[in-house]
Amino acid sequence: MKLADARTGIEVITRAECYALLRKEPIGRLAIVDGSAPHVFPVNYALDGDDVVFRTDRGSKLDIGPRAPACFEIDRFDATTRSGWDVVVSGRLEEITELDGARLQRASSLPIDPWADGERTHWMRLVTRDVTGRRITH
Amino acid sequence: MKLADARTGIEVITRAECYALLRKEPIGRLAIVDGSAPHVFPVNYALDGDDVVFRTDRGSKLDIGPRAPACFEIDRFDATTRSGWDVVVSGRLEEITELDGARLQRASSLPIDPWADGERTHWMRLVTRDVTGRRITH
Repeated sequence: MKLADARTGIEVITRAECYALLRKEPIGRLAIVDGSAPHVFPVNYALDGDDVVFRTDRGSKLDIGPRAPACFEIDRFDATTRSGWDVVVSGRLEEITELDGARLQRASSLPIDPWADGERTHWMRLVTRDVTGRRITH
Repeated sequence: MKLADARTGIEVITRAECYALLRKEPIGRLAIVDGSAPHVFPVNYALDGDDVVFRTDRGSKLDIGPRAPACFEIDRFDATTRSGWDVVVSGRLEEITELDGARLQRASSLPIDPWADGERTHWMRLVTRDVTGRRITH
């Protein structure tokens, strides 16, 4: 056990374990900046290597320009034991276009299955710069 | 049932129901902007009227200047039924100081009980501008 913070007792989750957790969850929360304000919304996702990939539509909230800074968060908490963990992936958003045929083909075959209806014919990826994870146990 | 989006089948959650959900959850995700990048981290919280109140320490990630734009998200999802909901409160962050004695007294008596250890002697509130909620059912 490695403490992230001796004052708070929060433990560090290793990068390997962060990705193990990221492979298990079907949904996470994407945060972007629009103007000067943050926005958060849940998305269904999958991993392509180290990157978080998800589907979207034209005209969505994600039309905020190329290589916009973003982060993606997953977590699980248990109120009865007051414990839980969270993993945050930080990086930049990029649309996966036909210019990147191999990646687009991989994205199209990923098990990303949005629960909401709608076409969602575009694939985006969060190009990972950092992955951090923290756990609280008692 | 009011559709937020006929294309996706996502329903709008009314403001009253958003607050009913906010009163039930013990933990949510605060998003702030640091430089140009968004950051997300889970916090234990309570409501003071329409505002989201939580505890923090000096020198935390929240030292990003007064009245910084922020949002706060709660959600519940069920992978087996592919359904769920999320509520997002948007506004600006403000420290509750002794200059605002009545509010500080109210904050101190709120049932905010951080699961992580540490002093957390400061109270912050997200001064609400907008509350939105969405639900996916099948």
